[in-house]
Amino acid sequence: MNVFLVGAGPGDEGLITVKGLDLIKKADIIIYDDLVGKNLLKYSKEDAELIYVGKRKGKHSHKQEEINNILVEKAKDAIANNKIVVRLKGGDSFIFGRGGEEVLELKKHNIDYEMVPGITSSIAVPEVSDIPLTHRKVATSFTVVTGHEAEDKKENEKQVKLSELNANTIVILMGITNLENHVMELLKNQNRTVDTPVAIIMNGTRPDQKIIKGNLGNIVNIAKENNIAPPGIIVVGDVVNVLE
Amino acid sequence: MNVFLVGAGPGDEGLITVKGLDLIKKADIIIYDDLVGKNLLKYSKEDAELIYVGKRKGKHSHKQEEINNILVEKAKDAIANNKIVVRLKGGDSFIFGRGGEEVLELKKHNIDYEMVPGITSSIAVPEVSDIPLTHRKVATSFTVVTGHEAEDKKENEKQVKLSELNANTIVILMGITNLENHVMELLKNQNRTVDTPVAIIMNGTRPDQKIIKGNLGNIVNIAKENNIAPPGIIVVGDVVNVLE
Repeated sequence: MNVFLVGAGPGDEGLITVKGLDLIKKADIIIYDDLVGKNLLKYSKEDAELIYVGKRKGKHSHKQEEINNILVEKAKDAIANNKIVVRLKGGDSFIFGRGGEEVLELKKHNIDYEMVPGITSSIAVPEVSDIPLTHRKVATSFTVVTGHEAEDKKENEKQVKLSELNANTIVILMGITNLENHVMELLKNQNRTVDTPVAIIMNGTRPDQKIIKGNLGNIVNIAKENNIAPPGIIVVGDVVNVLE
Repeated sequence: MNVFLVGAGPGDEGLITVKGLDLIKKADIIIYDDLVGKNLLKYSKEDAELIYVGKRKGKHSHKQEEINNILVEKAKDAIANNKIVVRLKGGDSFIFGRGGEEVLELKKHNIDYEMVPGITSSIAVPEVSDIPLTHRKVATSFTVVTGHEAEDKKENEKQVKLSELNANTIVILMGITNLENHVMELLKNQNRTVDTPVAIIMNGTRPDQKIIKGNLGNIVNIAKENNIAPPGIIVVGDVVNVLE
């Protein structure tokens, strides 16, 4: 196999998989994003080709189409010259990582690939903050949803409203900017009230991690008082306080 | 730190985290379950104490209370004698792993611990079968829920019905035994029909992995024809076929 899509995990370099790190060490070509800390790239071979395809909100340095083209080109190079190419993404490639689009492009060109899952921040960031997404008698289901409604909203006619998500625990990724709207939507659900616990974890697993807790009634104010800004993960439900 | 709760990942030994494997290598005491393949224990020190606390459906060799007691006893031993104790669980400790209960027990005894997240099979098993849980324009939310209703049902008054879970993608863990009931519940949701795609992945990431695909109308029959049995993961939603 020459082509690997590797999830880098949530940031802490110990949280990439053994297989993922081995591939970074072996790779001749690594195509990586903003969300992958430079910390993992230090394990690459001295002569490895490191290709940055980052795209941050507002300043799209690389469109997905460009990334697809680079990936296909480098994958063909890898197959022809017996190299290893690693497409490295923050978290897990298939959890809001647009890995599916890159896989479709590889398939279109009949390029074999292997998926190497990564630790998704949606689970790991609450976990290292003592918030389990499930807990006996408290939560037997959890939903992960994107709160980033910028460009995708018009295109995602199938997007489910926050008010309609009934799982015991709701995890909202990329939801800080629209926190107030999200809280209003969540409150429309009959199973939630102003007393429903909420936690926001900013810069999860990084040295500057910050966590605030409150409820749907006061979290907007608490977030303002504490200067909460992206990137952050919002967790809603009784699990927020279950280990206290 | 002397006490670590480590997620072992979905089975493939390359899918434990770097940190998790390092801890297995260093540990003086490892407390492990059935779901952790023996494959990871081979990395432990020659003189490490390996304590099996497995409990399989039907034959509860160890009750959770016993496990808690063993964990606390060994944690105290580790702290007193500068040892490392690893509580190793399949997947991730906080995703239906009952890790929260063990953490509560440690807290009750004022024992410090560190969580080391693991790759959950709910994401990784579909992923290596080419099923992304999210995909642009197709799914911007996913829910993970347990389908195992045996002993927990009476106690989980907060359990949300499958019919009420509205996320684009639904992942049901431990749901094979009650497949027919789950399908009937899922069909009560207005966003789903007999044509809604379903995949079942049996023995995910193991050499004997088997995957079947169909829809809510025919999956029960397809599962019977293919002798699908636990352990398996059910994925419901358009993502099932999005990479085909």
